[in-house]
Amino acid sequence: MANGKLIVVGLGPGGAHDMSRRARTAVESCDLIAGYTVYVDLLRDEFPDKQVVTTPMRKEVERCRVALDEAAQGRTVAMVCSGDPGVYGMAGLIYELAQEYPPIAIEVIPGVSAANGGAAVLGAPLMHDYCVISLSDLLTPWEKIEKRLVAAAEADFVMALYNPSSHKRPDYLKRACDILLAHKDPSTVCGTVRNIGREGEEAHVMTLAELRDTQVDMFTTVFIGNSQTMELDGRMVTPRGYLQRED
Amino acid sequence: MANGKLIVVGLGPGGAHDMSRRARTAVESCDLIAGYTVYVDLLRDEFPDKQVVTTPMRKEVERCRVALDEAAQGRTVAMVCSGDPGVYGMAGLIYELAQEYPPIAIEVIPGVSAANGGAAVLGAPLMHDYCVISLSDLLTPWEKIEKRLVAAAEADFVMALYNPSSHKRPDYLKRACDILLAHKDPSTVCGTVRNIGREGEEAHVMTLAELRDTQVDMFTTVFIGNSQTMELDGRMVTPRGYLQRED
Repeated sequence: MANGKLIVVGLGPGGAHDMSRRARTAVESCDLIAGYTVYVDLLRDEFPDKQVVTTPMRKEVERCRVALDEAAQGRTVAMVCSGDPGVYGMAGLIYELAQEYPPIAIEVIPGVSAANGGAAVLGAPLMHDYCVISLSDLLTPWEKIEKRLVAAAEADFVMALYNPSSHKRPDYLKRACDILLAHKDPSTVCGTVRNIGREGEEAHVMTLAELRDTQVDMFTTVFIGNSQTMELDGRMVTPRGYLQRED
Repeated sequence: MANGKLIVVGLGPGGAHDMSRRARTAVESCDLIAGYTVYVDLLRDEFPDKQVVTTPMRKEVERCRVALDEAAQGRTVAMVCSGDPGVYGMAGLIYELAQEYPPIAIEVIPGVSAANGGAAVLGAPLMHDYCVISLSDLLTPWEKIEKRLVAAAEADFVMALYNPSSHKRPDYLKRACDILLAHKDPSTVCGTVRNIGREGEEAHVMTLAELRDTQVDMFTTVFIGNSQTMELDGRMVTPRGYLQRED
């Protein structure tokens, strides 16, 4: 029996209209679409005839095993992920688990990440060196997250913060802001974007001091400016330095 | 006269087949395509009838002014950028320069950045908290770059390094590696990707010690692993921690 193929496909933040042609072609040509229920549902209208297999939230290992099992049986499986599968997505876990299987061809098709997608909604906050940090301590000790926040603040990186809140940790963004405020000016320009590229998309620009007292949810990505980041006509913009060089 | 619109469009790393439907629609519906000659050329086959205005390398301010001038005259201009226009691209400069013009509607359509596109070629290196750092000191003092490299190493971020080399600074990657080697294990898994998504795409996985003695060019993006990053069957993979949690 021929070995199959597993293509890990990034949908971008908004689903179908954010997909690249490469991503679309991969989904069109697969035997089976696998993934988290919410993301697979984004594609049902566009690919109504495709067989799908879905798994619920938090079942990441099971979700990847289902996809690898199907590929090991000779099928071409498209595992779909929101945003970029290589950023807190399933790409790494697929490679790790594939070690337990006979050789399967694996390909990752990147998508626009929430960091890049959210930045475009806010303006242009990531124009200079930046860090992407998840505030979730489900898989990472909080001490490590804290250390990274301090390092990013001290070296004046722009930051994109994933998983800034959840039901079990509603105050994590506040904790993060308190850490940042020890190293950054309270007037630092920050932004939040909720439901990037989807219905109900919502963006706000504010200071770090204001962000500290803002309640966000798990569908929000948070942006912390560097010392140069400005608010221009309601947009969050970090200069790259072209005009400053001209001066 | 009605004010026009300026849409800053990310093409993704490889050009036309990496564009999202949103990006494609924007280019289809514009009056004029503007941008750096090389990127505009990527689109000529697909959009042969579009009027274009191109500017050579390094003329970033002029390029943005040309696009803003056209938009100010009531036209809808698509300014195209390789990768994501919000990452070392033109999005920020457009917002800055737009301050000198009457109100123009500006929209940014994100694309897959070189960091995310290159990561997908290498495997899954950016699965945990990461930094994006440009080694170019044309607009940023080297001392600041050095400080960010040290901070990223000490806090064990994965790193994606842009502009690792040029004719005028062929040894910058070596200098960066020497800084990193003071804080990271020489066996740290690293990777390089050249011509991401284009003809001649080429990827290599190696140790940090080997990377120090590797000559790369300006078409290469460099990835530095964190302490957990592994080489799995020739791929560069950073675990997120799902399996480690199960143990």
